Amino acid sequence: MNLTALLLASTLAPSALAQDPLPSWNDAAPKKAIVAFVEKVTKSDSPDYVPPAERIATFDNDGTLWAEQPMYFQAFFVFDRVRALAPQHPEWKDKEPFASVLKSDVKSALAGGEHALLEMAMATHAGMTTEEFQKIVTDWITTAKHPQTGRLYTEMVYQPMLELLAYLRANGFKTFIVSGGGIEFMRPWAEKVYGIPPEQVIGSSIKTNFEMRDGKPVLVRLPEVNFIDDKAGKPVGINQHIGRRPIAAFGNSDGDLQMLQWTAAGSGPRFCLYVHHTDAEREWAYDRNSPIGRLDKALDEAQAKGWTVVDMKQDWRLIYPFEKR
Amino acid sequence: MNLTALLLASTLAPSALAQDPLPSWNDAAPKKAIVAFVEKVTKSDSPDYVPPAERIATFDNDGTLWAEQPMYFQAFFVFDRVRALAPQHPEWKDKEPFASVLKSDVKSALAGGEHALLEMAMATHAGMTTEEFQKIVTDWITTAKHPQTGRLYTEMVYQPMLELLAYLRANGFKTFIVSGGGIEFMRPWAEKVYGIPPEQVIGSSIKTNFEMRDGKPVLVRLPEVNFIDDKAGKPVGINQHIGRRPIAAFGNSDGDLQMLQWTAAGSGPRFCLYVHHTDAEREWAYDRNSPIGRLDKALDEAQAKGWTVVDMKQDWRLIYPFEKR
Repeated sequence: MNLTALLLASTLAPSALAQDPLPSWNDAAPKKAIVAFVEKVTKSDSPDYVPPAERIATFDNDGTLWAEQPMYFQAFFVFDRVRALAPQHPEWKDKEPFASVLKSDVKSALAGGEHALLEMAMATHAGMTTEEFQKIVTDWITTAKHPQTGRLYTEMVYQPMLELLAYLRANGFKTFIVSGGGIEFMRPWAEKVYGIPPEQVIGSSIKTNFEMRDGKPVLVRLPEVNFIDDKAGKPVGINQHIGRRPIAAFGNSDGDLQMLQWTAAGSGPRFCLYVHHTDAEREWAYDRNSPIGRLDKALDEAQAKGWTVVDMKQDWRLIYPFEKR
Repeated sequence: MNLTALLLASTLAPSALAQDPLPSWNDAAPKKAIVAFVEKVTKSDSPDYVPPAERIATFDNDGTLWAEQPMYFQAFFVFDRVRALAPQHPEWKDKEPFASVLKSDVKSALAGGEHALLEMAMATHAGMTTEEFQKIVTDWITTAKHPQTGRLYTEMVYQPMLELLAYLRANGFKTFIVSGGGIEFMRPWAEKVYGIPPEQVIGSSIKTNFEMRDGKPVLVRLPEVNFIDDKAGKPVGINQHIGRRPIAAFGNSDGDLQMLQWTAAGSGPRFCLYVHHTDAEREWAYDRNSPIGRLDKALDEAQAKGWTVVDMKQDWRLIYPFEKR
């Protein structure tokens, strides 16, 4: 290439290719739809322009930003807490679902479904101050390993979604997590891992009580549900915390459907995306019949409404950051 | 002045004076304390440096950012709603506290204290969708006038506090409202008036329910308390919404004491400020014996702990923006 051609090439091909903000997304329909939406709402002369203050994007966490198989990662945390606290609770040896956890019988432990998990969360996530709980979570999340991959759970986040979060923020969006998981379970690491500060994390919660202990104010965690941020609870949580309707929402299961419906129903440009777990080799493949992260009714609605559906196997060049070479 | 002196002066006196960020604050102790704190936490070589993500500042609203006499401004809104809805509630004619409101007997209407106010709020702030309520608030706040000043309520905000909010934000702080008032009563106008977006407004709330109406998702407001963001509720609300302890907090009454205690108890530099209403001429003078905005226990604690106390009469050059000339 001579100098003229080189100059010409550098003029004609702007740095877009070199600076692709979504390099882990294959050049397929979902990536194109994301970029088209972002350009449409950020160009000041666009009829669909949205001022930065209204560029709210909400993301489910389990199965959308990080993996959720063979069970929600917080369930592993709950089980580890049950084991750690067992010496103080001799009665758990004969009491389900605790007894099954202590016998490492996961299937029986989870036979009671979400209710069983909630019961164990109440028993193990309450009774301490918020600062004490934050330390427990931080100690666990920086050391516990996934039983199948041997990776830290925070390594099992989706590289394409990390790029999407950064791309949206670079375009003036505020990115929020809206998860059925525990708000205080996510906050200690969400900023480091996702770049999402605690005030932009919405999740399920238990009640806390303000107390003075030796003249020092503390918030004590109570074994009482405050809010369940799942299904119809997601729009409620969004309204409570954000007070403004998102213009973009991202989920992967039927539990996210109401969030996407709520987002889609606003006036002006909207973007709704479902992550469909189709890659049994690099991750997991599951949808309509999965007890975790079931995607059934919402898959039908996504197709009917023309929402973007990511086929993980086809559309993502990488799944996890550790695959990068 | 010759050229050398002029150059020297412009070197020695940077544009600080011309660009005073707090022009409505007299050059007294509170202003100096604010500026010293902000400089200390923002200078990167300061031992007290705080990274921007942790620069959280929380503000009470009633009596701290806007006036609250002769009663909370939201109470005027409640009374106006009772009058507006009375035709649909013939039973209110004989039922307290509604009957007294309809007879314009404010004193009797408020004889039941906060409980009476809450009862009327439940009866008038629920039953519609969140969008409908937002419109009702917006219509009211842009037209209703204060009975004594004849001003819009949003004109009765404190000019020095508007400057303080802007000054903190210019220095990388995130500013939050943490008010006992209704979260959905403040959000429709807080961004325009204070520059505080809805996701940074924390307040008392009622429950909402996600419903489909004619295929359209709505959030319906229920006559059931969700959260009371006052006194010991303020640190709870801060933890729930922000998930990070403020480094600066601003209040004016005993209802803010726990917020300031919670703020002060963190490690590292902290700033706590009380607005003391001392100006009977330009605003109102009240403290230990006022039924609205009582400042008694907290005034003692502020003095004992060395928190900054603003004497409105002495320390504020202007009270309201409309006084500007």
